[in-house]
Amino acid sequence: MKQKEHILIVGAGLCGSLLALRMAQRGYTVTLIEKRPDLRKVTQDAGRSINLALSDRGLKGLRLAGVEKEALQLCIPMNGRMIHPENGEPFLSPYSGRKDEYINSISRPGLNILLLNTIDQMANVTTHFNLGCEEVDLEHASATFKNYETGNTQTFSGDILIGTDGAGSAVRKSMFDHKKFLFSFSQQWLTHGYKELEIPADENGGFKTYKNALHIWPRGEDMLIALPNLDGSFTVTLFLPYANSDYCFNNLTTAEKVEEYFRKEFPDALELIPNLAEEYFNNPTGALGTVKCTPWHCYGKTLVMGDAAHAIVPFYGQGMNASFEDVVVFDEILEKYEGNWEKVFFEYEKARKIDTDAIADLALDNFHEMKEHTASALFQQKRKLEIAFETQLPNAYFSKYSLVTFNEAIPYSEAMKRGRAQDKAILNLLDDGKLNDGLSLEEKLALVKEETNNIMHDDAVVKKM
Amino acid sequence: MKQKEHILIVGAGLCGSLLALRMAQRGYTVTLIEKRPDLRKVTQDAGRSINLALSDRGLKGLRLAGVEKEALQLCIPMNGRMIHPENGEPFLSPYSGRKDEYINSISRPGLNILLLNTIDQMANVTTHFNLGCEEVDLEHASATFKNYETGNTQTFSGDILIGTDGAGSAVRKSMFDHKKFLFSFSQQWLTHGYKELEIPADENGGFKTYKNALHIWPRGEDMLIALPNLDGSFTVTLFLPYANSDYCFNNLTTAEKVEEYFRKEFPDALELIPNLAEEYFNNPTGALGTVKCTPWHCYGKTLVMGDAAHAIVPFYGQGMNASFEDVVVFDEILEKYEGNWEKVFFEYEKARKIDTDAIADLALDNFHEMKEHTASALFQQKRKLEIAFETQLPNAYFSKYSLVTFNEAIPYSEAMKRGRAQDKAILNLLDDGKLNDGLSLEEKLALVKEETNNIMHDDAVVKKM
Repeated sequence: MKQKEHILIVGAGLCGSLLALRMAQRGYTVTLIEKRPDLRKVTQDAGRSINLALSDRGLKGLRLAGVEKEALQLCIPMNGRMIHPENGEPFLSPYSGRKDEYINSISRPGLNILLLNTIDQMANVTTHFNLGCEEVDLEHASATFKNYETGNTQTFSGDILIGTDGAGSAVRKSMFDHKKFLFSFSQQWLTHGYKELEIPADENGGFKTYKNALHIWPRGEDMLIALPNLDGSFTVTLFLPYANSDYCFNNLTTAEKVEEYFRKEFPDALELIPNLAEEYFNNPTGALGTVKCTPWHCYGKTLVMGDAAHAIVPFYGQGMNASFEDVVVFDEILEKYEGNWEKVFFEYEKARKIDTDAIADLALDNFHEMKEHTASALFQQKRKLEIAFETQLPNAYFSKYSLVTFNEAIPYSEAMKRGRAQDKAILNLLDDGKLNDGLSLEEKLALVKEETNNIMHDDAVVKKM
Repeated sequence: MKQKEHILIVGAGLCGSLLALRMAQRGYTVTLIEKRPDLRKVTQDAGRSINLALSDRGLKGLRLAGVEKEALQLCIPMNGRMIHPENGEPFLSPYSGRKDEYINSISRPGLNILLLNTIDQMANVTTHFNLGCEEVDLEHASATFKNYETGNTQTFSGDILIGTDGAGSAVRKSMFDHKKFLFSFSQQWLTHGYKELEIPADENGGFKTYKNALHIWPRGEDMLIALPNLDGSFTVTLFLPYANSDYCFNNLTTAEKVEEYFRKEFPDALELIPNLAEEYFNNPTGALGTVKCTPWHCYGKTLVMGDAAHAIVPFYGQGMNASFEDVVVFDEILEKYEGNWEKVFFEYEKARKIDTDAIADLALDNFHEMKEHTASALFQQKRKLEIAFETQLPNAYFSKYSLVTFNEAIPYSEAMKRGRAQDKAILNLLDDGKLNDGLSLEEKLALVKEETNNIMHDDAVVKKM
C-alpha cells in the first residue's frame, strides 16, 4: 500500500484540530501549526472565557472523530431563549416543542483542549505552536512561518496544505493576493460591534439567573445576551452600533454613561454585573463580519476550510457547528475520491459551498430576529404557534430554527429555503387573520403547509426560468 | 465669497470626465488625472472600438452638464433585441411597447472624447494623462502617481480627492488596505469570460444585418451579442464559460475548434465575421465581475464614484448609465449640503448605495435572462403580454426593463422591487393558466396588478418584522 500523504494544516483552532484528528485517524501524516501559544500552557480560566453554542451538526463532527461523549461533559443544555423584555417579566421561548431538541453552551478553550489532548495520543500528528503564517506557496503546499518565541523563520512543506486559520486567514489572503486565477471574495462588516462582560457565579458557585437558557435582552437596535458557563458564571455579550445612535460604542466613553445606559435598557442585568464599567473599558470591542470566497482550493494542493473559507456572524450559534460539519462533508468526499486531491477539493466545494453560503445568510437574518423580532407581538404569535405544532404534532412540523439546528440530515440550504417559506407563510396567515381560534391545530398546520408550498412553488416558477 | 475648493479627480474615463466637467461648471478648481494616454492622441478607430448602451439615466447626466445633444449625434437607436434562435428565423423582441422607449449604441471612446473636448473649454480644469496612481493619502486628499512617459513620481494634493478610476480602482484599493476603519468589500467573478469580435461594414459602408437592434444569439450557457457602430460595423461579444463545458475558453484552442463551434451554434453570425479565428486569438479574454463596497468615503476627504464604487456586469447595459446617474445624485446632494463635505459624502452614499446595489443584482439577473430565458417559451409569452400592455395601455404598465431603463425618476431599487414582483406575478399567472384568451387585455392587466400587489404585500409583512 502506498504511504498516505503528508497534510500540513495551518491553524489549530476548533476546525483545524478536529480536521487534524480525523485525518490522522484516516492514516495521514499530519503537521498541525498554530499561531497562538498552546492553550494548555497559558494562564486562563476556561470556564470564564468565550463560550459557544454546540448543536447537532457540531456533535456529528465530534462523533465522527470519537470525542462526542467527552465533549458533552463540558456542555450546559440551553432549552430556549429567556427573553428579558423592555417592560414586563422575563419569559422562556423554547427552541423547539420537542424535548430532545436543545442547544449547548460550551467553553471554546475547553473544547479545543479536549481536541488537542486527543490529538496528542496520535503518533502521526506533530503539533507546533507560536508559529505565525507569513507566506504560502499555493502551488507547492508549503508555507513560511515566523516563530514568535525565537523570532526565526521556518518553512514547512507537505503534499497538501489546508488552511483552517480562521476569519482572518493568511492562507485565504494568499489566494486573494495571488492574482493568477479569478478569486471571488467578500467581507461584510456589520455596523454593530460587540463587547464581552461577565455575570459571575454567586458565592456558592451557583448561577445568579436561570441556568438552562440563552438569555436575550432585545432592544431593537441593541441587544445583550448571556450564555452559562460550568463554573456558575455567564458570559455576557453586548451588541451595539459603533455610531449614529443615542447609545453607541463611539459615545459610551465614561463609566457614568455606560451605567446610565444599562440602568435604562438592562436594569435587571446591571444588578448581576458587578464590574460593568471596568470590564467595559478593559475588554476590546470586537467586529462582526461575514466572509465568503470562491474557489476554496487551487492547484489540487491548497484548500481553505472552516472560518477561513466562510466566516459568519454569531447569531445563529452555527459558526463552530458549520466548521465541524465541514470536516464531516470533507471526510465523506475523501472517502469517495481518496487519491485524487483535485477531485476531492472540487467536489467538496461543490457539495458544501451552497450550504455555508446559506448559514451565513441565516445568521444575518437571526441578528435582526434576536435584537428586534423577539420583542414583536407578531413574532411571538408565530413562535407560540410553532411551539404548539412541535409539541402536539412533533412529527409533522419543524420550524426554521429546528431545521437549521436540530436536523443535521437536512443541508443548511434546504433548511433556509423551507424555513424562510414557512416563516413567510405563518407571518402572512397571522397578519391576514386566517389562523383564527375557530380552527383546530391540525387545520392551522394544514393551512401553513398549503401556503408554504404555494410560496415555494411560486418561487420555483421564477427560478426555473 | 470664499474660493471654492480644489478637487482632485483620479480617473478620466466616462464618469470622471463627466464629474470633472460638472464640478468645473459649479465653480470648483479641478485637477483630472488619467492613467492612460490621451484618447485623442493615440491611433484608434472610435467607431469600431467598444460600444455601450446609453439610455435615459445616462442621458440625464449628460443633460445636466449640457452635452446631451452632442452625445445623441453619436448614437444609433436600438429598439429591441433581435433574437437569433437555435432553430428558426431571427425575430425582434422590442424593449418596450412605447415608441419613444429605446436604447442607444454609442462608442465609448467617442463619448469620452466629447467629454474631454468640452472640459478643455473650461478654464478651471487641468487634465493630465499617463499618470498611474500608486498611493493615496486618504486623510489628506493627496495621491502619488507614476508618470509613464518620464518614469518619475509626482504627487498631487487637493482639498478633496474623488476616485473615478474604474473597476480596478487604486483609490478603493487604498481604502481596502488602510485597515483603520471597517471596509466591507466584495468582488464576485462570473465563471464566464468574454471575447470581442467584429462584423465589418459591407463594401458600401452599410450594415450587414439589421441595424437598429441589439442582436442576441442565446444558447443557454453561451451567448453571442452584437451592437451596431456608426461606421456600419457591429461589435460582437462572445460570452462563454472558462471551463467545464463542451465548448469553453479553456478548450477552444485552435482555429478549427473555434470555427466548428460557431458553425454549430451561430452559423448565421459566422457568415458575417470574416476574421473569426484571427480576432478570437488576437483579442484578450475579459473577465466579468461585480464589485461592491462600503463606505465609499473617509475622513470627509476622499470618495469613490462610478465603477470604482460599484462595478457591475454589462448585461443590463446600465454600467455607464449608473455612473452618470451617480454624478446627477452627487450634484443634487452637493446643492443641498455644499460646504460640508463629510455630510455631502455621507448623504450621497446613503441616497445612492441602495440603488447601485440594486442595478448590480439586476445586471446579474439579466445575464441569465439573455443567455437562457430569451429562448424560453414562457419568457416569450411574458414579453408578448408586456409589449401588448405597453402598446395598448401605455400609461398603465411598465415592465421591469422599462422601469430600469426608461424611467429615470424611479430609483433602481424601486424598479427592482416592483419589476421582480411583476415578473413573478406574470410568470406564475401564465404557468397556472390564469391569463386565458377569454380575458380582455384590461382584465389581464388587472389580474397582473392584483397578483403583483399581493406579492409585494406578502414580502413586506416579512420585511417589516
